Amino acid sequence: MARLGEFEFIERFLRPRAALGQPFYASPLALGIGDDAALLPPLAEGEQLAISTDMLVEGRHYLADTDPFCLGHKALAVNLSDLAAMGARPLGFTLSMALRRIDTAWIEPFLDGMLGLARQAGCPLIGGDTTGLPSDNAECMSVTVLGSVPVGRALRRDGMVEGDHVWVSGALGDPAYAVRRRMPDPRLDMPQPRLELGLALRGVAHAAIDVSDGLSAEMMHLLQSSSARNPESPPLQAILEWTALPLGAGLIKALEEGHLRDGEARVMAAAGGDDYELLFSAAPDSAVVVRELGQRLGVSMTCIGHIGRRPIGGDAIVWRDGSGRPVDAATTGEMKHGGFRHF
Amino acid sequence: MARLGEFEFIERFLRPRAALGQPFYASPLALGIGDDAALLPPLAEGEQLAISTDMLVEGRHYLADTDPFCLGHKALAVNLSDLAAMGARPLGFTLSMALRRIDTAWIEPFLDGMLGLARQAGCPLIGGDTTGLPSDNAECMSVTVLGSVPVGRALRRDGMVEGDHVWVSGALGDPAYAVRRRMPDPRLDMPQPRLELGLALRGVAHAAIDVSDGLSAEMMHLLQSSSARNPESPPLQAILEWTALPLGAGLIKALEEGHLRDGEARVMAAAGGDDYELLFSAAPDSAVVVRELGQRLGVSMTCIGHIGRRPIGGDAIVWRDGSGRPVDAATTGEMKHGGFRHF
Repeated sequence: MARLGEFEFIERFLRPRAALGQPFYASPLALGIGDDAALLPPLAEGEQLAISTDMLVEGRHYLADTDPFCLGHKALAVNLSDLAAMGARPLGFTLSMALRRIDTAWIEPFLDGMLGLARQAGCPLIGGDTTGLPSDNAECMSVTVLGSVPVGRALRRDGMVEGDHVWVSGALGDPAYAVRRRMPDPRLDMPQPRLELGLALRGVAHAAIDVSDGLSAEMMHLLQSSSARNPESPPLQAILEWTALPLGAGLIKALEEGHLRDGEARVMAAAGGDDYELLFSAAPDSAVVVRELGQRLGVSMTCIGHIGRRPIGGDAIVWRDGSGRPVDAATTGEMKHGGFRHF
Repeated sequence: MARLGEFEFIERFLRPRAALGQPFYASPLALGIGDDAALLPPLAEGEQLAISTDMLVEGRHYLADTDPFCLGHKALAVNLSDLAAMGARPLGFTLSMALRRIDTAWIEPFLDGMLGLARQAGCPLIGGDTTGLPSDNAECMSVTVLGSVPVGRALRRDGMVEGDHVWVSGALGDPAYAVRRRMPDPRLDMPQPRLELGLALRGVAHAAIDVSDGLSAEMMHLLQSSSARNPESPPLQAILEWTALPLGAGLIKALEEGHLRDGEARVMAAAGGDDYELLFSAAPDSAVVVRELGQRLGVSMTCIGHIGRRPIGGDAIVWRDGSGRPVDAATTGEMKHGGFRHF
């Protein structure tokens, strides 16, 4: 078990990997790992900076025996997914870790997984911090991503308005089903952030969020933020189509093979989490544009409902069945709007 | 013991405090806590972004009974000190925490200490993440600060050249002495980052670093970075004056009262750490400018040596006594050039 100073950690593990294939490190105006602070080259004119950060804790967000390559990929992917949901283009990221020990057999694949995605996304590792932990403690890591977006064009949560259509990219629920079966699943283990889609939705989506804690919980965030923006108006309500939910291929297969009931599969799609798809709203007359950009990017786009005004005493989200009647609570009863609770 | 969702954590603790007195939250182009990512207003033309991050672990960087107000202050201060060492002006910061529980009696003074310094430094809290920990685990937190600096004017570590004078701001060693006596000390508990000094040193200092791990260890970082920049030249050597080290008021008092020997005090000043002063180099003909800007800012500035070429087989740092002779190893023997080791 090696015990390394921070300088040796940078030299041995980070510097050789960070520079691989990243134009950032060729810029004379950029400064990466190893100074008091990293320096980004100036943003293009009219761009502003987007920042997102996540803390991952062993035993809570991942397990000690989680494949380190997948973990490295996912720790960055969940942050890139936040940038995607803002319509921001990645610029770089920092990584802080508290580790019990420097285990080369773990740290090398972890960094390879993380920096493989970093290269693919054009998001170089530009700084970080590593520190030791007593041997019986849960390890943790914090990733902070930086991105840029044209001023005023970010996809915020608070721009949803009455009459908007509600859309979701891709398909939902396979990661939740994999968790339930305790099976590996590429969608769960190595999610692909919807960065290109986020960029394409600038100027189209009124509001957007990424689906990390379950579609239903994320819908609540959009409703709360957008309703809070106009406190003098009645709050918004989402009227969603239970049968329109795009089910993942794994769920469809399980339905066909009789391993799942339809209601179970839809609850996983509506509340399961870890999907890292984009949930967004757009004006009804943008429907053609949304479908076209989905086709161009090879991502299915599904309209799952619309936004109305919430009647006094009404729910924030109403699910309707194929004939327009409310889905009964016995069907949706397992859903928790709160999504994944960190405390 | 409250268990809160992230949304409630933001609403209850962060949002009311984050906005207090910060112009950031009045900008229509800015977006703070509560969306997928925070948005910074566009930087002024010709500015580039500086980013620094630190991970603090309970039991290693602070204790469970550390005063939470001081801890909050210090967790931000050590990051602002990195911006100071780059000559960058603070823009905002993110805070990620892994906590065993939400203890209001701890979290409120912690955030008050942190956000008090944030207001003073013009560095608003713009985002973050909180997550729970099993009850027997060390808590940890990660702070990432963002700042701006005119393109190409940042104070890097690698600009030191032969002939430079070596300067340090303020006085050294009191925090290390407080640690040794296990006594509280304002310099140790609530360090004041040298932000104004960092800005004033733009265009004056050739290279700079903040003294967190001890002056001697930081000097090594400057030597390594600056020597690596010109690999075809002989590496640099720092020739430092043992008797020129500016001792803190606490060390001077302890010397006068006979509680410390002179050598012990100087070792604490040279290698103790936690000083958060700026160590920098500048051309000899900048000496008057350095002293003047120190007077203007009310910070003492001490020239502690100069930069030469390292002879083959020579040490990277040579300490000389008042008569120009090398200080013997018995005097400096306690010093560890490596400074504080995280692993």
